[in-house]
Amino acid sequence: MNFFKKKVIFLDYASTTPVDQRVLDVMNTWQSENFANPSALYSSAILAKEKVSEAREKIGEVINTRKNEIIFTSGGTEGNNLALFGVFETFKTEGFTPHFVTTTIEHPSILEVFKEIERRGGEVTYVPVSPEGIVKTKDIENAIKENTVLVSVMYANNEIGTVQPIKEIGRMIKSLKKNNLPYFHVDACQAVLYLNTDALRLNVDLMTFDGIKMYGPRGIGMLYVKSGTKISPIHFGGGQEGGLRSGTENVPAIIGFAEAFKIAEKKKEEESVRLTEIRDYAIDSILKTFPKATLNGSKESRLPNNINICFPGLDSEFVVISLDVHGVSASYSSSCQTLKEDSSSYVVESLGKNDCSLSSLRFTLGRESKKSDIDILITALKKIVIK
Amino acid sequence: MNFFKKKVIFLDYASTTPVDQRVLDVMNTWQSENFANPSALYSSAILAKEKVSEAREKIGEVINTRKNEIIFTSGGTEGNNLALFGVFETFKTEGFTPHFVTTTIEHPSILEVFKEIERRGGEVTYVPVSPEGIVKTKDIENAIKENTVLVSVMYANNEIGTVQPIKEIGRMIKSLKKNNLPYFHVDACQAVLYLNTDALRLNVDLMTFDGIKMYGPRGIGMLYVKSGTKISPIHFGGGQEGGLRSGTENVPAIIGFAEAFKIAEKKKEEESVRLTEIRDYAIDSILKTFPKATLNGSKESRLPNNINICFPGLDSEFVVISLDVHGVSASYSSSCQTLKEDSSSYVVESLGKNDCSLSSLRFTLGRESKKSDIDILITALKKIVIK
Repeated sequence: MNFFKKKVIFLDYASTTPVDQRVLDVMNTWQSENFANPSALYSSAILAKEKVSEAREKIGEVINTRKNEIIFTSGGTEGNNLALFGVFETFKTEGFTPHFVTTTIEHPSILEVFKEIERRGGEVTYVPVSPEGIVKTKDIENAIKENTVLVSVMYANNEIGTVQPIKEIGRMIKSLKKNNLPYFHVDACQAVLYLNTDALRLNVDLMTFDGIKMYGPRGIGMLYVKSGTKISPIHFGGGQEGGLRSGTENVPAIIGFAEAFKIAEKKKEEESVRLTEIRDYAIDSILKTFPKATLNGSKESRLPNNINICFPGLDSEFVVISLDVHGVSASYSSSCQTLKEDSSSYVVESLGKNDCSLSSLRFTLGRESKKSDIDILITALKKIVIK
Repeated sequence: MNFFKKKVIFLDYASTTPVDQRVLDVMNTWQSENFANPSALYSSAILAKEKVSEAREKIGEVINTRKNEIIFTSGGTEGNNLALFGVFETFKTEGFTPHFVTTTIEHPSILEVFKEIERRGGEVTYVPVSPEGIVKTKDIENAIKENTVLVSVMYANNEIGTVQPIKEIGRMIKSLKKNNLPYFHVDACQAVLYLNTDALRLNVDLMTFDGIKMYGPRGIGMLYVKSGTKISPIHFGGGQEGGLRSGTENVPAIIGFAEAFKIAEKKKEEESVRLTEIRDYAIDSILKTFPKATLNGSKESRLPNNINICFPGLDSEFVVISLDVHGVSASYSSSCQTLKEDSSSYVVESLGKNDCSLSSLRFTLGRESKKSDIDILITALKKIVIK
């Protein structure tokens, strides 16, 4: 990160990624040169409409979906809200309580929505994860009941980077479906840069993506909604996005988002290999340098860019601020979590490592990360953390 | 509008405005140079957080509010949804039916939300407008009941540009308030470029704005929420915007939005005078050229940029497409309305001019509009419309 000319080692890509210059370039024309509302009827509006349709096609090529299955939102949080509330509002009726299954380590934009769904009369089962941070397909299966309308499992965790067995869960749910229920929702915001997001192959019905996590524009995301999946809108109005998401289309962001998908897909394999090497170098070096430190979450089933380490006894907030003084941007738990008064990590607690919930650091790699960044990180850590 | 080098007379500024170049300029640094998530704890994130706070301050100076009273949203539709659902969800309880008062000519992002609120058990009174398109304060007052929790009246209509007596209604509601209820919500999306939007002076509790209508960025809007106003969120998650709107802040768009507010405020008076002159020239010329044509809505209490004319017997969709061939971008009813199967204008019908609901054209002026555009428009209309 070239933060206003001062060289900074940025190790918080799970929190946010910069907008790719190629993305900014394709957006440019649609800000003030052709700025038409795609719902209007004159030539420039029709062209904007066509470009939005083209963007759907481009994204559809990456995630193997049809154009009308893509609902653009303002980001990942809205996408997750739309998926869960959308299904809840569709199925709650007099005398029927919709039941949901999820895990204990989902993002706040899932867990907080489920809290609200419970408040509104829905029922939610929270399936725990293993000490490695992985949910068992069998546990999900056992939690499914007659009235289960949706199962929501994140593809990869935002804090500890563990990758869930989405393909296996998808297959299991498919085999249990009656009248197309339960639906399977996957939050793929953290996964899209590194893992296969073929919606058909994964047997998902709903899948969330966010531009800000994939070098795309801010304020744009999408929810994949498989044809035949019944969901209600959460924003009502002009009836855009097939009635599922009213509000004038954010044309430049949609066009840029499609470009970000294209670039991500192209770089996926190469970046995964490259970052896995840097990640493993970092994990091994840190654990060697700090013998009491432990890795949070599975090393094998893990995003290529995620390093999350517990330093017993350490005050993670203090270390994050101290690392900043040394020119390293890192985080403890997740950015969303820092807004809470209780900054302990419920994800780390879910691993049974309660002592680590206030003593863990997250370093997440990205396109600008180099192996030498890790050496600088370790030098800084040595100055701050007592072995 | 310089639509890809082909000169076009753009007369649909109520549908969308181009992003001001100065707005794009201030956004630029925050896309990829400093892209940090404002919730993180390192220097670049803290700077991003400060810039967001500064943006709130800048906007607060224009609309006379405090920083913590500004809730950023993804646009006008989300703002209106948040205001209405937010109040409904807060006050609906066992044994209490929240009642709402609104007008028959509100934007679809109000009327469709009220339909949904009725479906969820709320009660809504729709107050009609005069043949001039203005609601009477007395009629609003008469509609208010013991269980009224909110009155929602748009500042200026998006189709016919009529301006409602917001200050008067605000004063009336203030005098009736018990336990701070009913709240007064105003959709100011169409008004902000031309009318006074001082929240205290207008006695509003909630007020919606949209970047795309004011030469600002796409995908950004805001809801003013007066301190002490009880509303619930519609997006749940990380707890951003004081818990009222979860989702990572769209930093570049927020910064650009504040700049758009600043520019709008600076230009407000001068543009209002300039466009009123062009508007009146257009109305007079059209009515003189087409003797059977009539103006929809009051001429006096009307946005400076709105011209909406009924041409009896005309097929407005056909004319909009024909005007496009002549290089003029116009609309019938509103862009949102074109998505509906029934493209007739419920706003024009509310005036009692049922014959005009499929035969009206909307021309809306903006910063690039010149008097000579009107001459070109009239020349084109003469070729298309039979006198």
